[in-house]
Formats: sequence, C-alpha cells, structure tokens
Amino acid sequence: MINLSANQPLRYAVLGTGAVGGFYGARLQQAGREVHFLARSDYAQIRREGLEIKSKDGDFRLPQVHVYRDADQMPPCDVAIVALKAVHNDQLPRMLPGPVAGGGWVLVLQNGLGGDERAAALVGNERVLGGIPFVCANKIGPGLVEHIDYGFMTLGVYGEGYAPRSINAGAVRVAEDFRAAGIPVELAEDLLAARWRKLVWNVPFNGLSVILNASTDAMISDPDIRILARALMEEVRTGSAACGREMPESYLDAMIRHTEQMLPYRTSMKIDCEEARPMEVEAIYGNPLRMAQAQGVDLPRLGTLYRQLKFLNERLSAGRPHPPEQ
Amino acid sequence: MINLSANQPLRYAVLGTGAVGGFYGARLQQAGREVHFLARSDYAQIRREGLEIKSKDGDFRLPQVHVYRDADQMPPCDVAIVALKAVHNDQLPRMLPGPVAGGGWVLVLQNGLGGDERAAALVGNERVLGGIPFVCANKIGPGLVEHIDYGFMTLGVYGEGYAPRSINAGAVRVAEDFRAAGIPVELAEDLLAARWRKLVWNVPFNGLSVILNASTDAMISDPDIRILARALMEEVRTGSAACGREMPESYLDAMIRHTEQMLPYRTSMKIDCEEARPMEVEAIYGNPLRMAQAQGVDLPRLGTLYRQLKFLNERLSAGRPHPPEQ
Repeated sequence: MINLSANQPLRYAVLGTGAVGGFYGARLQQAGREVHFLARSDYAQIRREGLEIKSKDGDFRLPQVHVYRDADQMPPCDVAIVALKAVHNDQLPRMLPGPVAGGGWVLVLQNGLGGDERAAALVGNERVLGGIPFVCANKIGPGLVEHIDYGFMTLGVYGEGYAPRSINAGAVRVAEDFRAAGIPVELAEDLLAARWRKLVWNVPFNGLSVILNASTDAMISDPDIRILARALMEEVRTGSAACGREMPESYLDAMIRHTEQMLPYRTSMKIDCEEARPMEVEAIYGNPLRMAQAQGVDLPRLGTLYRQLKFLNERLSAGRPHPPEQ
Repeated sequence: MINLSANQPLRYAVLGTGAVGGFYGARLQQAGREVHFLARSDYAQIRREGLEIKSKDGDFRLPQVHVYRDADQMPPCDVAIVALKAVHNDQLPRMLPGPVAGGGWVLVLQNGLGGDERAAALVGNERVLGGIPFVCANKIGPGLVEHIDYGFMTLGVYGEGYAPRSINAGAVRVAEDFRAAGIPVELAEDLLAARWRKLVWNVPFNGLSVILNASTDAMISDPDIRILARALMEEVRTGSAACGREMPESYLDAMIRHTEQMLPYRTSMKIDCEEARPMEVEAIYGNPLRMAQAQGVDLPRLGTLYRQLKFLNERLSAGRPHPPEQ
C-alpha cells in the first residue's frame, strides 16, 4: 500500500510498454520517478537502447530504463500501471503479483469497461484506481512512441461495483506525480461516469472507422455518419443513465464539435485492425452493452456495431485483414 | 391497356437488359412471346449476336432479338417490364412513354420499396403490377447472363398507397406467360406484404455482405452475425406490421434455415459493390426505414446499416471501392 506518511517518492511499474504505457511511463521517469517497465516484443531493444518518445511537445530519450520480460522479476512498487490493451487482461493474474505483492495500488489506464473490476477481483477493491487516457500516441517502432496530440488523463478511485468513491490521498499523490510529469489530470469523483463519458466518443468513431475504413474527418463531414454517430452517442448516454450516471445532452454536441475540429485521425481501433492486432471490442462495446442490458436497457445500434466488429475481429485473428490486401 | 378480350399474345418491353431483365426477357422470347429489349452498354453486342443465357436448367441462345438504345424508338407494348436497378428509376420518365404510350401495363420487377409508386405516378395506379424476382443471376459479359439458381417470382397488383388489390385478369395473363416460359409465379393478393417479406432476407444479408466483406455461408455460420441477422429480420417484421402487414415469426426462422441450406452466395449488393456500381441502398433500406418511420416506428439496426451503406455507396461513386484494392 502507498505509504502516505513517509512522503517518499512513489515507485511505479508499467505493465505493457506500448503507446500508452511507454508514453506515460517515460514522462514519469523523465520527471524523476523510479519506473519499472514490463515489455515483451521490445524487451531487448529497450534494455539496450532505452525508450524514445517523439512528442509534439518535444522529443526525448531515456537511454537507461528498468525493463523486465517477466512481471515476477519486477521489484515491489507503489503503483502498477495496467497499460495493456484490454484484450490482454487475461494476463493480469500472472502480472500483478510481482509488482504489487507487498501492497501498492493498481492504476488501470485503459479505455472502455471491464478492466477495473478485473483488477479489483485480483487485488481487492480498495487498491484500484481507474485512469482514462486521452492521448493520440502510436508505437511506431521497438521502444519508440510517437505522441501526436493531447495527453491528459482522468483519474478516479474504484469502488465495489463501481460505487462512486471520493478522491483519496493516494489518488491525489498519483495525480501530483503525473502533473509534475506534464500530464494534466482531472480527478473524477465517479469513475464509472467518467468511463461512460469517454465511450461517447469511442463507441461511434472507433468502430465506424474500422467498418467504413475511414478517418475521423471523412466520417464527421458525412451527413449520414454524423446522424449515426449522434444516435450512437445518444445510446451511450442512455446506457450511462441506466447505470445511474446521467449525462447532459450538451456533452454529446460538444463531442461532435470536438471531432469536427480534430486533425484527421486514425482511431486506435483502426490502427489495431490495420496491424492485425485484436481490437478492444469487448471493452468498448460488449461490456457496456451487457452493463446496460443488466439494467434492462437495450442499445440496438451499439449492439449492431458490436456484432459487426466481433465478426471482423475473429477474421483478424484468423489472419484475414479488414479491409483485405491493405 | 391489355386487350383481354382479344386473346392475342401479349407483347413485352424489357427496360434494362441486365441479369434480371435479360434472364426473364429471354425466357419469355424463348417461349414464343414477342419481346423488345432496351439496352445501353450491351446494345451493339446484342444487336449483332443476340442474347445468351447460361442456365442451371440448360444453356440457350437467342441469336436475334429486338433491341433498342432509346426507349422512344420502342413499339407500343402490352407490358413494360422495369428491370433496371432501382438506383436508375429516375430514368423512368424518359423510358416509359415509348413502350406504354398507348396504354399497357408496367411490371416493376425490382427488390425493395419505391419502384411501384414511382411507376404509378407516371402511368396511373391501375396500370402497375409489382414483381419480386427470386433469382440468382449475374450478367457475366455483354449480352451474356449466367443463371445460377432459383428463378421464381411473386406477382401482385399495385393499389394506390399500396392498398391491397385482388389479382386481376391482367396479372393472371402475365403470370400465365411467365409460367409458360418456365418461371414459377406466385400471385400475391397484397403486393406490399410480399415486398416486405422479401426484405426479411435482403435487409440482413445484402448489407452485411458488403460491410463485412463476407458471403452468406460465412455470415450464417457466425453466431454473432446470426443474432444480428435475426434482430434485423425482426425489425423488418416490425416495419411490416407498422404498415399493417403482420408477418408470422416462423417466417423469420424459415429464412434463417433457408440461408443455412443455400450454397455460398455473393449477394447482388456485394456484386454491385465489387463492380463499383451503385448499390440499391434506398430501395432496400432507406425507403422501408422511412415507410416505418411514417407510421411512428423506428428501426434502429436497419437505420444503422442504412447510414453505413450510404457512406460506402458515396465512396463507390467517388471511385473508392470497398473493400479497397479488390
């Protein structure tokens, strides 16, 4: 558990050194925190050359980083950042014991729903923080992350069954570390509400970018896709309300405007699809759909995308790219 | 108007010599009817070499056919068969006057909704028959049609605003001619009900085959697409009921079973998409959606496919195939 009285610097583990884990972990280390990275395919490169970040805010390199191939070789840490794609959360039972065996917090830095509960089932409700990254970043080579835009995150405390939990001293200290590393952090009193809000953007634009083979600018400038995206956002709002998290309609309009003003952008799901990596279909579609259905509410458009994307995901894992021959 | 008393053979015009018009028109001529074909891209070839049908029931050739490049050069006919793709129905005002100027019936042999009313607005309600082709046929070369499977059609009499109209003597005579040409014909007392029933299959499988880049067997054997297809069928049933046409739920199950038993099949919309021809998105999705909405009923999954397909259709017309590079 974080020793708040000691006022010693927190020690971090980053589980999954992809775009999100690489970017945030490198920022923390750059700001002077001790960070331990778990890497798989990039392990040798990172061990030899460290991490490199090409950032819109200035490129930087960390020539030496603590990197591990196996989580059980990692030292005990105060905070383990889960930065895996949600599709790999089945690996958490093997990964978490090493870095947080002696206590310590788990910060689930993922999109969609499902990761917080999974971590809580492993380490206990009171040790889970949920983070929502708002960052355009891609891993463009081994140990090399390109940070294109944004970077802020929303941070909340997990409560059993997503009961709202006030910000505690631990979340405040983690937020301080991220802010010291140049990452704006918004503290959320209600983690589930924050996760549903992020889905307002992710549900329409991640899935449709794959299905339509389109970038955000092509979608938002098409009158039919605007109507469909708005209807999907409305379903996310309905799902959120069914879970007791009312959301103002104006937030949906703001997300439409925000998308109009974005630079043309390939969504993370589109990139996963193009690189034949599994897409986060359950986190972004399946789990929200089921959470709403458990409250007796159907989300038919979201469910349509869910089935379409599951089909495409299974084709991807069978080695059939979508669109073909790209 | 058809001279029923004369008992003379009916004379046919076929407007649009593609797969459907070529197949049915050739069958009628083969059976001894006088048939006049309107053709555009294949005009020269058909004039020189006639029509050729490669059929599962036996290949045949018609070395000499009456073929026209312009509808206003066609002689007056008793029945003008509208066998254009529905996307070209804006050409009907130029096409219909030639062959049916002196009276005569218009048989709208198309999928989806919209064509019957369009023809009725041009020639009067009492002169329109609606036909629904159940045929797997492709034009595989100039003047060359491949007939793969099925072939029967459903035939009904159009009534103003799709009011049910009993089969009349004209419809009976047309049906007799088709039957004499080896085409099984089912007479429908309620044309709109028959058109909605055909949509039960077309709505799920035409659109999803394009969106998922999949054939019927790949879709029907996938558990998620089965669920989605069944839910889309249920929405078609809801739309049909909203228009006063109740449909038994068992019909939906029958269509699922029928699809399981079909040979793997590329839908007509998939073929249009692959050949970069406009897809019948309004006839199969937009018009049914609006007809249900006019009765105060929303069809959210059907509407989702509609917006997706409209987007892909516009890309097609802009020269961007889907999927790319195929």
